[in-house]
Amino acid sequence: MPGKAHNRKVTPKPLRPRQDGRERKHAKPATRLEEVLQSAANIFFAKGFHATSIEDVARDVGMLKGSLYYYIKSKDDLLFQLLLAGIEDSDAFIAQQIDLAGDPVEQLERAIRAQIDYIIQNRVQFGLFLHEFDSLSGKRQHKLISVMSRYNSRFVDLVRRGQEQGKLMEGEPWIIVNGILGMCNWLYRWYDTDEISDPEQVKRIFLGMLLQGIRKN
Amino acid sequence: MPGKAHNRKVTPKPLRPRQDGRERKHAKPATRLEEVLQSAANIFFAKGFHATSIEDVARDVGMLKGSLYYYIKSKDDLLFQLLLAGIEDSDAFIAQQIDLAGDPVEQLERAIRAQIDYIIQNRVQFGLFLHEFDSLSGKRQHKLISVMSRYNSRFVDLVRRGQEQGKLMEGEPWIIVNGILGMCNWLYRWYDTDEISDPEQVKRIFLGMLLQGIRKN
Repeated sequence: MPGKAHNRKVTPKPLRPRQDGRERKHAKPATRLEEVLQSAANIFFAKGFHATSIEDVARDVGMLKGSLYYYIKSKDDLLFQLLLAGIEDSDAFIAQQIDLAGDPVEQLERAIRAQIDYIIQNRVQFGLFLHEFDSLSGKRQHKLISVMSRYNSRFVDLVRRGQEQGKLMEGEPWIIVNGILGMCNWLYRWYDTDEISDPEQVKRIFLGMLLQGIRKN
Repeated sequence: MPGKAHNRKVTPKPLRPRQDGRERKHAKPATRLEEVLQSAANIFFAKGFHATSIEDVARDVGMLKGSLYYYIKSKDDLLFQLLLAGIEDSDAFIAQQIDLAGDPVEQLERAIRAQIDYIIQNRVQFGLFLHEFDSLSGKRQHKLISVMSRYNSRFVDLVRRGQEQGKLMEGEPWIIVNGILGMCNWLYRWYDTDEISDPEQVKRIFLGMLLQGIRKN
């Protein structure tokens, strides 16, 4: 049986925003709206969306509640803007790392690295996205889904091209992509900078698992 | 660009309990407590934990609120019992499918199959676990974490033995296990019985990705 310290590493931990802001992608928000969104992300995630009030966010950013309404329409709107900014940000991040016209296996590897980097750097926002997506209205969910479709289609295109060139395994590309993204996205649940000092270690293992497989032949 | 129907398959969907109960593991609850837990799981997941009242659950199972307190102490206790029953149930499910003393690669394959089956059959409960774990008190989280440790250690032991026998890739076993479980657990987010008629298709692809790798050599 593995020891306690060992087991501790594989168990999901309560997700809390880091007090030092190390997981924030932008150390200093560029705009007042961005500052509002960052504050809301941290508070929603720490207290839960339903238990958070607009006043909590206003207090955190040092604004009057009335002034906050200059930037957002309602608490629902705040959540929506936050999730939309998150998915658009990650979409742009992946897009700038890869060249869809390049060798598909090489580009897929780059996309996986980028996905791992993104999740590690944005654990709180990503967790918020997963946990509160269902709180949004259908119309707003639909808008987010359209960005997610574009996001996923980059991965699907690479897998399909890899298959067409005989470089990747057979099988429904979208199922393969969900498998890849699942492995990467799950990082939001267990990755801990206190226990893993070098994200390259995770990338090396995950890329080994995905590209070569874990079984030695 | 892939077509719309195609993209639709890779996007997370709002998670709602199935009206026909097909995702419930036990079609008929064995006990009144089990019935209460099932009802609570569905309502918590549909409305969110914070927006659900004890009255909602009582109404759903046709009990007076006072009678419900015979089974549970509070709404927090209800959530805790529900999550604990879920993790103990999945732990027992995996344990009965594998033989830790058997060939580690063979047993790991069995464990992965079991994990996929479990997630597919218990999407709602699993999503509830992820989304509401943070709502629990530290003491209750600690109890759940201890069961999760036992759960994960089965996988870690198999990976470590496989490595010792030279049958599996090098790398921290707990990182490898988090990669495997991530791929499987992410199913709660995208698996849809309307689009995938045969879970064997997913198992074949995932086991291919994990054991052989997606790149053809």
